[in-house]
Amino acid sequence: MSGLNIAVLGATGAVGQQIVDLLAERKFPLKNLTLLSSPRSAGRQINVGGKSYIVQEVSDESFDGVDLAFFAAGGGVSRKWVEAANKAGALVIDNTSAFRLRDDVPLVIPEVNGSEILKHNGIIANPNCSTIILALVLKPILDQVGIKRVVVSTYQAVSGIGYRGMEELRRQTEAYVMGRELEALALPVIGAEKHFPIAFNVIPQIDDFAEEGYTKEEWKMVRETQKLFNKPDLKISPTTIRIPVMRSHCESINVETIKPLSPQECRILLAKAPGLEVMDDVQRQEYPMPFYTSNQDPIFVGRIRRDLTVENGLNLWVVGDQIRKGAALNAVQIAEYYAQKTG
Amino acid sequence: MSGLNIAVLGATGAVGQQIVDLLAERKFPLKNLTLLSSPRSAGRQINVGGKSYIVQEVSDESFDGVDLAFFAAGGGVSRKWVEAANKAGALVIDNTSAFRLRDDVPLVIPEVNGSEILKHNGIIANPNCSTIILALVLKPILDQVGIKRVVVSTYQAVSGIGYRGMEELRRQTEAYVMGRELEALALPVIGAEKHFPIAFNVIPQIDDFAEEGYTKEEWKMVRETQKLFNKPDLKISPTTIRIPVMRSHCESINVETIKPLSPQECRILLAKAPGLEVMDDVQRQEYPMPFYTSNQDPIFVGRIRRDLTVENGLNLWVVGDQIRKGAALNAVQIAEYYAQKTG
Repeated sequence: MSGLNIAVLGATGAVGQQIVDLLAERKFPLKNLTLLSSPRSAGRQINVGGKSYIVQEVSDESFDGVDLAFFAAGGGVSRKWVEAANKAGALVIDNTSAFRLRDDVPLVIPEVNGSEILKHNGIIANPNCSTIILALVLKPILDQVGIKRVVVSTYQAVSGIGYRGMEELRRQTEAYVMGRELEALALPVIGAEKHFPIAFNVIPQIDDFAEEGYTKEEWKMVRETQKLFNKPDLKISPTTIRIPVMRSHCESINVETIKPLSPQECRILLAKAPGLEVMDDVQRQEYPMPFYTSNQDPIFVGRIRRDLTVENGLNLWVVGDQIRKGAALNAVQIAEYYAQKTG
Repeated sequence: MSGLNIAVLGATGAVGQQIVDLLAERKFPLKNLTLLSSPRSAGRQINVGGKSYIVQEVSDESFDGVDLAFFAAGGGVSRKWVEAANKAGALVIDNTSAFRLRDDVPLVIPEVNGSEILKHNGIIANPNCSTIILALVLKPILDQVGIKRVVVSTYQAVSGIGYRGMEELRRQTEAYVMGRELEALALPVIGAEKHFPIAFNVIPQIDDFAEEGYTKEEWKMVRETQKLFNKPDLKISPTTIRIPVMRSHCESINVETIKPLSPQECRILLAKAPGLEVMDDVQRQEYPMPFYTSNQDPIFVGRIRRDLTVENGLNLWVVGDQIRKGAALNAVQIAEYYAQKTG
């Protein structure tokens, strides 16, 4: 195959733009590229690898001749347009939570369960950002020594809700410096009743609340990881938290393993694993931080140490760019895998 | 007793100034107040409850006639002046880590183990800020149902290293808005080889690194909590993290209990406990956040939910003002307890 006809729905959003940039950066075998959006953003011009594209309003005809469509415009938009895309013969790689837990939809991190890609029925789901970061680190540990239980607390960037989150933090920061009141419009959830400032604050809510007092974001970390590993009983106890950082998520991960794994064995194991980079030399103050990991592909792991309170346990500090591996990069890697296997 | 002669060493620092303010605010039975500092800050004028005081350089004679001295100027300064204070007959309430783990020094949170205050030998130690917040919440749970193990991840404000931390975040925030480079001078540790920006960043290091790859801050949470509860085997697995927030610390606490405790039972238990305030109604988006808890006395607890991965377990989200209950307020409460019992 000389190349694929690609569409990106939600091309003007944070994840959509990153997908477009990555397609160019990674020299994806493109034939045609169609950029799609809501009527509000249609007409905008976007540069991709030196070529200029006009963003078009999505319609029933948008997917004619398209081989593969990235959807990154929210769950409602995905639900609305998936049928039209599939009818036109396009495979949809969906970045939203709309189809992730459907039995007939593969949920994929290429480094974790890439072969699932070929089992698709027209849709492949991209996991949630905090799930991708967690699962990529747990996978080699699970395979090597087994996992009994995971307790994870996240430190999530505002980019998790897209450009509006980043604009909100930027605007509030300016207001703080100018001595003005901080206006909160988007966080924690755009459609929620109450909004709170994120600048100089911490919001212990990501997405809406669901069963047992956990948020949907927390449930995503549990159920998506279980599906990715095909281990419906895997025990994950999550707390997801929004902090004033632009675009890298951090996770404090406590993992109880079935067999022992020393910190040094863990470092060697994770350093060999695809998609991960170990950055762990505390005597030299080397550990991952959002300030230095943003706009990079790998998920970084540091502060690997024995949990001294259980027989087999480790504490890990993990940081990864939420828009890259946490969203757009993973989606593009799915497309690359698909193009390679079916090309 | 009509009142005590009080000295505050480190009176120009963040914790020292808060101690002075709280003495006035809480109408502490004061006879004389002496404000002490290093030569660098001596001569400054400080207003306390409408009266003006000149800060004096600390010397061997500073403690003559002093009944009770608050030390809040760093471990080295405490070690240097404790003998002079004790010789002059002053009881020292020390806010640093210098004496906390000494067998002959009571380590006290009045709500947890107030009666230890009367067993002092000239020094009473104030626990570390992140320890106070953790222990105050764990205490009623420990007493009611027993604790098997705690996994805690912190989200700590820059005030933990005093005014220099707050100035650094403020300066870096201004630089960000002005488009200048962020200069890092103080964090993570003033004396460390490397400094990193904290604005829009997360630093997984608080204090220096020690045994097993844990920081001293993490060891403080373990050992001080064990001493406070007189349970040297209590299992605590901590990860302490600095985030860009001014003065309230947050903690994501996972606690495995020996006997069962439902979320609702836990809410009732903690709501009755001294020093705590339960703020937990997720359907109304009510949960504690630094933006709203700073400059307040209580430690706030929310997001109380069952840990679905163990037989008896809970997840809690806890936020408290690091300078108030995390440091100055606790020290003043120790002094109040002492004044009342010995008055």
